[in-house]
Amino acid sequence: MAAANSFFSVVAGVGAGTGRSVALKFAKTYPVVLLARNPANYESIVKEIKASGGHAIGISTDVSSPQSVSSAFQEIQKELKGKKLAAAVFNVGGKFVRKPFLELSLEDYEAGYDSNGRGFFLFAQAVLPLLLESVESSPHPPSLIITGATASISGRATSASFASGKFALRATGQSLAREFGPKGVHVAHAIIDGVIDIPRTKEYAVNNGAPDGKISADAIADAYWYLHTQPRSHFTQELDVRPYVEKF
Amino acid sequence: MAAANSFFSVVAGVGAGTGRSVALKFAKTYPVVLLARNPANYESIVKEIKASGGHAIGISTDVSSPQSVSSAFQEIQKELKGKKLAAAVFNVGGKFVRKPFLELSLEDYEAGYDSNGRGFFLFAQAVLPLLLESVESSPHPPSLIITGATASISGRATSASFASGKFALRATGQSLAREFGPKGVHVAHAIIDGVIDIPRTKEYAVNNGAPDGKISADAIADAYWYLHTQPRSHFTQELDVRPYVEKF
Amino acid sequence: MAAANSFFSVVAGVGAGTGRSVALKFAKTYPVVLLARNPANYESIVKEIKASGGHAIGISTDVSSPQSVSSAFQEIQKELKGKKLAAAVFNVGGKFVRKPFLELSLEDYEAGYDSNGRGFFLFAQAVLPLLLESVESSPHPPSLIITGATASISGRATSASFASGKFALRATGQSLAREFGPKGVHVAHAIIDGVIDIPRTKEYAVNNGAPDGKISADAIADAYWYLHTQPRSHFTQELDVRPYVEKF
Amino acid sequence: MAAANSFFSVVAGVGAGTGRSVALKFAKTYPVVLLARNPANYESIVKEIKASGGHAIGISTDVSSPQSVSSAFQEIQKELKGKKLAAAVFNVGGKFVRKPFLELSLEDYEAGYDSNGRGFFLFAQAVLPLLLESVESSPHPPSLIITGATASISGRATSASFASGKFALRATGQSLAREFGPKGVHVAHAIIDGVIDIPRTKEYAVNNGAPDGKISADAIADAYWYLHTQPRSHFTQELDVRPYVEKF
Repeated sequence: MAAANSFFSVVAGVGAGTGRSVALKFAKTYPVVLLARNPANYESIVKEIKASGGHAIGISTDVSSPQSVSSAFQEIQKELKGKKLAAAVFNVGGKFVRKPFLELSLEDYEAGYDSNGRGFFLFAQAVLPLLLESVESSPHPPSLIITGATASISGRATSASFASGKFALRATGQSLAREFGPKGVHVAHAIIDGVIDIPRTKEYAVNNGAPDGKISADAIADAYWYLHTQPRSHFTQELDVRPYVEKF
Repeated sequence: MAAANSFFSVVAGVGAGTGRSVALKFAKTYPVVLLARNPANYESIVKEIKASGGHAIGISTDVSSPQSVSSAFQEIQKELKGKKLAAAVFNVGGKFVRKPFLELSLEDYEAGYDSNGRGFFLFAQAVLPLLLESVESSPHPPSLIITGATASISGRATSASFASGKFALRATGQSLAREFGPKGVHVAHAIIDGVIDIPRTKEYAVNNGAPDGKISADAIADAYWYLHTQPRSHFTQELDVRPYVEKF
Repeated sequence: MAAANSFFSVVAGVGAGTGRSVALKFAKTYPVVLLARNPANYESIVKEIKASGGHAIGISTDVSSPQSVSSAFQEIQKELKGKKLAAAVFNVGGKFVRKPFLELSLEDYEAGYDSNGRGFFLFAQAVLPLLLESVESSPHPPSLIITGATASISGRATSASFASGKFALRATGQSLAREFGPKGVHVAHAIIDGVIDIPRTKEYAVNNGAPDGKISADAIADAYWYLHTQPRSHFTQELDVRPYVEKF
Repeated sequence: MAAANSFFSVVAGVGAGTGRSVALKFAKTYPVVLLARNPANYESIVKEIKASGGHAIGISTDVSSPQSVSSAFQEIQKELKGKKLAAAVFNVGGKFVRKPFLELSLEDYEAGYDSNGRGFFLFAQAVLPLLLESVESSPHPPSLIITGATASISGRATSASFASGKFALRATGQSLAREFGPKGVHVAHAIIDGVIDIPRTKEYAVNNGAPDGKISADAIADAYWYLHTQPRSHFTQELDVRPYVEKF
């Protein structure tokens, strides 16, 4: 087992919520690469990590574009030369189009799949070879952790776009868990069932305004870290998460 | 309620197996439109239906192409002027690419979604307005019946492409059931868990060669007809199907 | 294959709803044995079947009592000497105790299991040997059909008693499907998700009083007959059922 | 929030595996009460905890007996006077009877429910009032953590007894999560899918003898502690666990 600082982690999909908290959490142990389409989404987090003594780089990336993902990982190879990948987190939300089905354009419908189907495929193809290389030496089993949603297990009315993407993501994650688990890579899927407590949702009156009625992004980060640190004799493939007051 | 011959049905994805049996079954009551990319896949079925006194037309259609689907339904409107849609069956298999994940090209991976995600979206957008128009008059609640597979509920190793498409299809089907059920349209999803008994699979030694160890396509057709004839007080959204000897 | 009148069927749990409709439906083909604790629950149905030319007997039976089940099947053997069992339907509702968990007595809690756990075990042990004997000769694969509920797949607040019984029933049904399917016996489980339209529920304002907003018991009977007539190459293990307007 | 030593925890079902590891883990923070029918199952663990400076008591308890559970909790009240309950773990395996269905006695079949149905009911009724009392002051949301198995979600051939008990347990756990979650008590269910690595299973050649092919009981204990320490904005209701090489 090598020292943790010979490794790095990558988080695709960062912004004000889960991605930021996950990046801050993993940065306590590993350098972190932050991927987001819009640099505004990672710049302040990179600064925050550096300010607290960590190492982080942000790369503007469109995960649904093969060229963009490829060039991001070329940059990663260059910037983190000699370091191995310990953990990859796929936290891309994508565009959530909620409309009556007959009002959806093809583009609307495909928005779900573009991020969570194609985007995850491209990300997974980039990180899995790197994770496989870390199996022997990583402090914890190299991990690919996926952010799912209520829509990962239930297609609600007017959510065909988002649900089809999240179902496809879960299918691919299960497939990867079965193929790469036996090779020592931990593929885990988290069903986040509730509204995340971030600045944008501050005014949302969810769960009748109950205290702690929205999910703490830091708690999700703790969950992902816990998943990452599970030993290979004890891999969780799926867990759910919701506020104590959430109806389910 | 109008006479059954004022209505028609449409089956997307016909060939030697389920699609053919479903078309023959529904043709006993309604004229049937058969959609397949390759005319060779529907021509003999059209003949078979006509020979037994039914009415059928075949239209070469690529369900994953907006233009192709649009032109198919224009032709349907012309050919079946004045008739209403009673039942639509989505039975598109698509290309089943089974490969180790890291050997999949993006095209390989997307093959699953192209048919079962985008293809179903385009088909559903074309048939749902027609099905809604039949709610008041159709002899049975107008139905949209979807062929799923084992891969609809479990992502197996090396099946990421097919499973992501079939999961996306199931998600969209659930979403439509919840949106259009209350409007009187019956959306049902069948999980076909096993090998279908068709000429192409004759030599497959499934279930140790047990008699009836493959699924009868005619029995699937009976199931779909049964689903179509359910009254609106009693809609089945999902059922599974497998040979008695199938492990599950 | 022998004539249908060499066979009989048995329905455990009859009253004003599903059980009655199922008995009437199966009586069109087979003599029917009706089991219910209270003779008042089967007497009028026996009369109804006889009046329409069918054959039926009722036996007062407490399915949760080994002695009662044993004596019922002794009586069946005597009354239907020489006939074989083609179909057995387990439709026992049991006592539905809905209370805050801490107000449940042990007896309250166990009410769910008594009927749906122990009761089904005793019924299944009585009918399975008879169904196995019919495999070679029965007009349709001999069938054991089980009535489940929403509570079979989701434990709601204050439903611990009913859900624990219905979950146990589903578990046992799955186990039997896997053990007896390959021997030719069809074990199927129906998730009835909604209120059944019977005299007792006439005043229930479910689904905002929508027409056909309650499940037709006759439609359930059609479903069970459909399940019974599936060929062995195409067994449905589970299906769900709900009114078109039901939220799910 | 009060100091952790004002609280205690209780683990029902201790022996050589999960129960022991969980007790040792929770004992680092809270005094632990160990319940097992056979004192031999807890005596050495009590010693082990005391030797490392912790506080533990063992009480011989048959969780399927109302009298036994009642007297155990009376003893707990006496022994731990003034302390509040922070965490309760239900880890009762019960008798695992694996037999062809027609060879099961009623007693065999009910063995699954006796432990996991009735046993859990009695345990939950004893601990929930105590957990509710801790909501305001406990260092972490008071928790009821339940050990499930593969058989909690799938009834395999010849496992009707065990599966019916584990399904009933899961149903009750879901029901409690929905009733007591909004009151601040965390009810979580872990699906342990694999063989636990304990002395008794040392010779089992599972997963082709792969290293770490059995689940580490200490890792389960870490999982339970992680679940216990989740904040109320982020409760996991269910997670699965299996060795990296386990087929699923």
